[in-house]
Amino acid sequence: MTTDWREIDEAVRVPPGAAAMLSKRDPVSPHLIEDKDAGRASLKEDAEAIDALQDALWAEHTRALLVVLQGIDTSGKDGTVRGVFGPCGPLGVNVTPFGRPSEEELAHDYLWRIHGAVPKKGIIGVFNRSHYEDVLVVKVRKLAPAKVIEQRYEQINAFEKHLTENGVVVLKFMLHISKDEQKERLQARLDEPESNWKFNPADLDDRKLWDEYQTAYETALTRCSTAHAPWRVIPADKKWRRNAIIAAIVRGTLEEMAPAYPKPDWKAGDFKID
Amino acid sequence: MTTDWREIDEAVRVPPGAAAMLSKRDPVSPHLIEDKDAGRASLKEDAEAIDALQDALWAEHTRALLVVLQGIDTSGKDGTVRGVFGPCGPLGVNVTPFGRPSEEELAHDYLWRIHGAVPKKGIIGVFNRSHYEDVLVVKVRKLAPAKVIEQRYEQINAFEKHLTENGVVVLKFMLHISKDEQKERLQARLDEPESNWKFNPADLDDRKLWDEYQTAYETALTRCSTAHAPWRVIPADKKWRRNAIIAAIVRGTLEEMAPAYPKPDWKAGDFKID
Repeated sequence: MTTDWREIDEAVRVPPGAAAMLSKRDPVSPHLIEDKDAGRASLKEDAEAIDALQDALWAEHTRALLVVLQGIDTSGKDGTVRGVFGPCGPLGVNVTPFGRPSEEELAHDYLWRIHGAVPKKGIIGVFNRSHYEDVLVVKVRKLAPAKVIEQRYEQINAFEKHLTENGVVVLKFMLHISKDEQKERLQARLDEPESNWKFNPADLDDRKLWDEYQTAYETALTRCSTAHAPWRVIPADKKWRRNAIIAAIVRGTLEEMAPAYPKPDWKAGDFKID
Repeated sequence: MTTDWREIDEAVRVPPGAAAMLSKRDPVSPHLIEDKDAGRASLKEDAEAIDALQDALWAEHTRALLVVLQGIDTSGKDGTVRGVFGPCGPLGVNVTPFGRPSEEELAHDYLWRIHGAVPKKGIIGVFNRSHYEDVLVVKVRKLAPAKVIEQRYEQINAFEKHLTENGVVVLKFMLHISKDEQKERLQARLDEPESNWKFNPADLDDRKLWDEYQTAYETALTRCSTAHAPWRVIPADKKWRRNAIIAAIVRGTLEEMAPAYPKPDWKAGDFKID
């Protein structure tokens, strides 16, 4: 599968300037990777390749990769971190979860906490939720005036352009699940004792606002899929396919970045170790 | 091996109030775990157990674990992170490397940047170097007046006591390698092209100060091995044994912490998901 990642990428990418058409995108998309065993094999291979590429990224020390994960409750953000970046280990991957902002965070503009968590050179940073919450939950729950939210799409585009012009490659993945799949996953949290702690009754309130969230996502994906930082809508009803697709795109992106080990400015013979 | 982790722990721990006796501690210590295959098997089992225990620690959300890794150049701090915490994935483990302090860090007291990186509830934090550099390299290189350094041992003990009284369990590992082993590892960085970038000519200057560093470690280990946060001196000439010992102690410590999944204050029947 690793040979045709561009084909898959093409299928999931929201073309800059076009509507995201979320409702037309199949959360299963069996045609993208048909065989589960093949998907798992490619995930394993890609995850190992990502690990090796990150090592070179660290050694090169001039650029960073930022992976933004967005999706409604149960869409599989944690599972993606574990599945795709687990094999990398904690040394070169920093995960930042963005929950409800603290008082201090709210006392700053909404990109302040985001900027502070952008990965440094050599690191892969993963955002579990992100600044997009400021045009998603904030919009649906009317936590800011419409006019303020309206300005944010362009502000976000400018911010991401700034990052990409300064050595941070930005990959944005929206984990797209169906309403039925969310129901099953929420029910599982109720039914399986070891998953009980993950269940939050407030998630059901958000589920009642399903359509409003889909509309807010449609707008965000459409207005913030840019040439420098396009959105990818990942079919996420099947966890294995979700992971395989994301791993293939992350690997392909890192291979295009082609991080290089620095050449030493010395020869081994210059040194004698006593 | 997992049944007798306390025995190994006893052997590597510096008893509070006693001299660390670094020069009497064998960096190989074959007796601690004799068989390499058994050591690798126990590492694998322990690393998986640590992963499961961290999940419960996160769900419980009341305590954190801080793992401090100290050791001279090439002693294997990165390798320990990868070997012991790699299987945990990046979700529940935060690694903080402490290098030469920045101007802003130097404008604060030396524990300021350390406190800022203490893991939050539910997280395993790993320090790659730490506040101990402020009584190690700072002492050997005379980067602060002797009188200032002299006060730090008690300040560090007070700081660590504060952490343990506030839900952060502190595990401190000194990776103990022999001078010959360091020579081999430095030489390998010179000889192997893919390791060249890890070689820093300045490491050779530190190697010339080997005895001074050992003395500074002896003092730090002796004065800062406390009942609430004892030091462990890990034989680190063999990477597999180093990893196996540390994993066994981390697992044993987490098992003693016995993190528990919270009980839900609802019944599954309370909710109907539409």
